[in-house]
Amino acid sequence: MNGADRLCDTLLVNGVDVCFANPGTSEMHFVAALDRKPQMRCVLGLFEGVVTAAADGYARMADKPAATLLHCGPGMANALANMHNARRARTPMINVVGDHATYHLEHDAPLTSDIESLAAPMSHFVRRIASAEDVGPAIGEAYAASLSLPGVTTVILPADCAWGSVEPAAVTKTVVPKAKTVAAESIRAAAQALRKHGARAALLLTGSALREKPLEMAARICAATGSRMLSQMSNGRTERGAGRVALPKVPYPVDMALDLLREIDVLILVGSQMPVAFFAYPGKPSRLIPDTCEVMTLAVPGDDLPGTLEALADELGAGRFKPANIAPARNGEPALPSGDLDADKVCTLVARLLPENSIVCDESVSSGRVFYGMCADAPQHDYLQITGGAIGIGIPLCVGAAVACPDRKVIGMQADGSGMYTLQGLWTQARENLDIVTVVFANRTYAILHGEMRNVGVNDFGRNATQMLNIDEPALDWVALAQGMGVEAGRATTAEEFVRLFRGALSRKGPFLIEAVI
Amino acid sequence: MNGADRLCDTLLVNGVDVCFANPGTSEMHFVAALDRKPQMRCVLGLFEGVVTAAADGYARMADKPAATLLHCGPGMANALANMHNARRARTPMINVVGDHATYHLEHDAPLTSDIESLAAPMSHFVRRIASAEDVGPAIGEAYAASLSLPGVTTVILPADCAWGSVEPAAVTKTVVPKAKTVAAESIRAAAQALRKHGARAALLLTGSALREKPLEMAARICAATGSRMLSQMSNGRTERGAGRVALPKVPYPVDMALDLLREIDVLILVGSQMPVAFFAYPGKPSRLIPDTCEVMTLAVPGDDLPGTLEALADELGAGRFKPANIAPARNGEPALPSGDLDADKVCTLVARLLPENSIVCDESVSSGRVFYGMCADAPQHDYLQITGGAIGIGIPLCVGAAVACPDRKVIGMQADGSGMYTLQGLWTQARENLDIVTVVFANRTYAILHGEMRNVGVNDFGRNATQMLNIDEPALDWVALAQGMGVEAGRATTAEEFVRLFRGALSRKGPFLIEAVI
Repeated sequence: MNGADRLCDTLLVNGVDVCFANPGTSEMHFVAALDRKPQMRCVLGLFEGVVTAAADGYARMADKPAATLLHCGPGMANALANMHNARRARTPMINVVGDHATYHLEHDAPLTSDIESLAAPMSHFVRRIASAEDVGPAIGEAYAASLSLPGVTTVILPADCAWGSVEPAAVTKTVVPKAKTVAAESIRAAAQALRKHGARAALLLTGSALREKPLEMAARICAATGSRMLSQMSNGRTERGAGRVALPKVPYPVDMALDLLREIDVLILVGSQMPVAFFAYPGKPSRLIPDTCEVMTLAVPGDDLPGTLEALADELGAGRFKPANIAPARNGEPALPSGDLDADKVCTLVARLLPENSIVCDESVSSGRVFYGMCADAPQHDYLQITGGAIGIGIPLCVGAAVACPDRKVIGMQADGSGMYTLQGLWTQARENLDIVTVVFANRTYAILHGEMRNVGVNDFGRNATQMLNIDEPALDWVALAQGMGVEAGRATTAEEFVRLFRGALSRKGPFLIEAVI
Repeated sequence: MNGADRLCDTLLVNGVDVCFANPGTSEMHFVAALDRKPQMRCVLGLFEGVVTAAADGYARMADKPAATLLHCGPGMANALANMHNARRARTPMINVVGDHATYHLEHDAPLTSDIESLAAPMSHFVRRIASAEDVGPAIGEAYAASLSLPGVTTVILPADCAWGSVEPAAVTKTVVPKAKTVAAESIRAAAQALRKHGARAALLLTGSALREKPLEMAARICAATGSRMLSQMSNGRTERGAGRVALPKVPYPVDMALDLLREIDVLILVGSQMPVAFFAYPGKPSRLIPDTCEVMTLAVPGDDLPGTLEALADELGAGRFKPANIAPARNGEPALPSGDLDADKVCTLVARLLPENSIVCDESVSSGRVFYGMCADAPQHDYLQITGGAIGIGIPLCVGAAVACPDRKVIGMQADGSGMYTLQGLWTQARENLDIVTVVFANRTYAILHGEMRNVGVNDFGRNATQMLNIDEPALDWVALAQGMGVEAGRATTAEEFVRLFRGALSRKGPFLIEAVI
């Protein structure tokens, strides 16, 4: 057996049995080894940005990493933007990047590049494999790191380490360090702060704290202390819907965020980062909390976030309190808007027609600004969103979520400008017959940038700005683009048409795309 | 005025008047400044890989850099693969990458990343702007470096350096260091080697040595000494066709390359690199020349390559010799193949119907392996190809060439798998109404990888290998994809259909795509 076989065995023994791939010549031995392992599911992406976003969506839903197969520095470069999003979501991921044979590197062949330098900014862990025998240990370390940090790991696989032979040996499951327990002292300090500051204290949550049970625990804490709870501006996955805790996110617009956080005296971070403006603007602050606000870091990524909330609830005797902010169920059939579509109507329609147990992948950017609030009392669902601001995550994020959860409907809320970055993901949706409805908000502009131009004081656009901010000439025909990649599609210009297409897509299995012209 | 205005002025005073762009929020002041400069042509790409490949194609034909506008680390990450190709072609390019305001970086906002680490592997020059007043010097340095190194330059523009004010001042043209002259001693040594080794000596050319006049000079040298001439495996631009020098490229298949170079005792590098295998294979050498072959580096990138050949010709008294290997003109109308298409027939048809003064952008990969040889005696044309092995250059390379040369027909020879990486470039072709005919070789597989799998000893593919190497289920409908982006298109399954579509496309202006089903 060779190093590539060992690689597959190490992944499989750890339960990593999905590989999103875009291979090249230097990975042929890896491909051949995967071919000898039918228990590994290999999913092809026609562009590497599809591969890593799919791995991200998969792990957010499966709670275990997928492997990716990427080709040399430039192949990984194409994957970096969505590695960046995964890094910000702290998604476990094992990227395997093929490189030239160790002895070939010195010759600077055309595809040679400094993979470490490229990988480091978007990875929590980077490791170059030194030999065929080093493949097993390297993949084991990456697997453990992906779950314990948690985050994005990148392993560089020189071709000769893949094809070199290894001694046959039993491959054993890797020991993953347990999530760390927060010190009792920190729990006590946080409890004290919550008691003292009440409504002027807030828990800022992210990561695994946003699942149903830990959220409920946080809501009991808030009920016991009168404190507030929020989630980060962007989060990998939130369990939401009627009967679950509804909590606001820190808003994107700086002024709205400042307003929301104005009266907080103590902010307690549970896996989250201190809230900062997504971008800097002249004359506006970077920090979104008042200068006088105390920031307490209760738990960081890698800590046991649900356990932390449980310990905090215990400390406060919060278990006997009814959780605050549970979203009520809706009464009766919700009314549906009618007439010509606009962005808010599309959001309303999806929110009101959202099926039970669905997974929403949200890259609707400015078009979907009202959507999150509208879904608080929708049937229970998972909400996944773009996390690092690197647009082009949506279509392939749906791919990964659908591979992880074949029995659940995946709804993609997709801005058109962002969707164009990784539209190749539609082909993978078709290839794998994934159960995904993609809703494209076809406003035919980079709408968010129109707002940002006004933010910098430009209200009248000349030819150059118009050329760079509008994508309407020619208009993209998303129905043709989807069909060109084997995905059925339809166009809606009215709410009635949208409802008909959306209900039709929900009633069947497999991918469907709706171009909502707004 | 602000830093962004100074940036535009510094570009324009140096004649850099095309900016390929994909902006985001942190570049809004740059966009606003571009909007105040109608003499700057701003060309939008709907994905950053389009932007840098277009800048590459532009500079290869215009012999001056374009600017690009990219958004933060992830936006530049999307651009890296084609920056890599440009780096290998030594194409002058000025990438302007927006970043957060200097004071915002410490807060690690979601889009923050280490741009220097990402840029360095794919750039010859990286410079972070320190202040608004530093914008002018930084852009001037990048401009000079892009032409004198020559190569890819990346300038990081923090948002507050763009919006910060600068003292109004006259912007003067940047002084670009002249291409370096090769020492007389080196010229003499090369002349001596050519005289001594005759047919067992070879000139290996690339870069500006592949234009009509320097090629003719090299061909006189070869006529005078009986020596051989070759070009690198991949080159940015070669002037070719009847009446010009026809020279072979170092072939991609290792065995063919070894055969071609087997009898060379002295290889003289003129701007080129020592020939190495594109990939390493078990049991095959990395170096493509015999161990006994002497390598003389006569000129490196940044040296005056045409001047070097002229000096060498002078030294050898080669001026009076008739240049060797001038391609004859064709006699009469060439016969055209008929019947069902295959890859070779498509190559034959394009080669035989190639219009005078056209520009060929070749990313046909394995499908086009016979094309280069077939075009030696075609009407005169420029031949541009993928240079760094980072697939996804073709469609946007055509964009850049067509922007640089609006009066010339651009022919894109496009493999389907590679084309999918940057198909968004078709939209820019439509938006700018560029005169491009794209020929897609629709073989619906990663054909080159089938060959490479056989090279590693795998002949029977199981499900996983099939899933990763074939792109036929579902088949991509390139006609729909093109039309979805506003480009007219047609499908050909026979030579007759192809000829009809190709002649039709040649007879009109504007983009057209032919899906050649092979």
